Amino acid sequence: MKHTSLASMDCAIARTLDAVGEWWSLLIIRDAFLGARRFEEFKASGMADNILAARLKRLTAEGILERRPYQARPVRHEYVLTEKGHALLPVIAALREWGKIWTTGPDARPPLIHEACGHTVTVALTCPHCKRNVAIAEVRAGDGSRAQAAVGADA
Amino acid sequence: MKHTSLASMDCAIARTLDAVGEWWSLLIIRDAFLGARRFEEFKASGMADNILAARLKRLTAEGILERRPYQARPVRHEYVLTEKGHALLPVIAALREWGKIWTTGPDARPPLIHEACGHTVTVALTCPHCKRNVAIAEVRAGDGSRAQAAVGADA
Repeated sequence: MKHTSLASMDCAIARTLDAVGEWWSLLIIRDAFLGARRFEEFKASGMADNILAARLKRLTAEGILERRPYQARPVRHEYVLTEKGHALLPVIAALREWGKIWTTGPDARPPLIHEACGHTVTVALTCPHCKRNVAIAEVRAGDGSRAQAAVGADA
Repeated sequence: MKHTSLASMDCAIARTLDAVGEWWSLLIIRDAFLGARRFEEFKASGMADNILAARLKRLTAEGILERRPYQARPVRHEYVLTEKGHALLPVIAALREWGKIWTTGPDARPPLIHEACGHTVTVALTCPHCKRNVAIAEVRAGDGSRAQAAVGADA
């Protein structure tokens, strides 16, 4: 029932969470970015079969993954990110970056690298008008309300 | 039970989702960025009281929100983003940007603007080495595995 209400909210964040915010969905997308395609490869993350099957089905229905046959007898399918799915890379990168700084533990997955130079990419807030990246403390909510985003942030 | 397993995973994305990935938590953080502080202000999003109370408690325990008294009799508290909470702005911005492009519906919340110029900020993948923002198609997983992120993306 939460799905319905998030999907119909007048907020792009809520609708995104409706599409990808179920438990495990973003980890499936993470694994797809890192090369997983087949059910067994996604299973390596420790999801129960029934949950993984339900999430793959939902993400396919959302157009985030595309289901393609890779074997004829018996027919077996693999799951590949669509353009819509690839477009989630900044979300994945932003979650990862926060976790690397603000949670404790190893980060065993391969980094996301800039192919041209081999260095790890990060995620940044950027101002298309000023053509430069901006710090969190430079950002505030655009109406006249109290702009917490500009207060107390030192990053 | 999913909490425990995500929190202990060797993956910064999973640990981030453990901290903020519960239903509604990211919407609470969104509202805090947009100026909400008090229970009633967060409630405006349509959360049930018990869910909102539980999420505020969890986010406070995680150090993402700070609970501060704003009234003595009776004691009432407001919730303010900490530095750790502010650091989630790129996650919020990335979710929003995806939703604006890939979901259908209005986006009624105020934009996040660059205070200096008043233009809406976006989120970008950036290469600290090359000192420039990079397109999704320029990014791949850093090991030798199939690098889906570099295939099929035209953004």
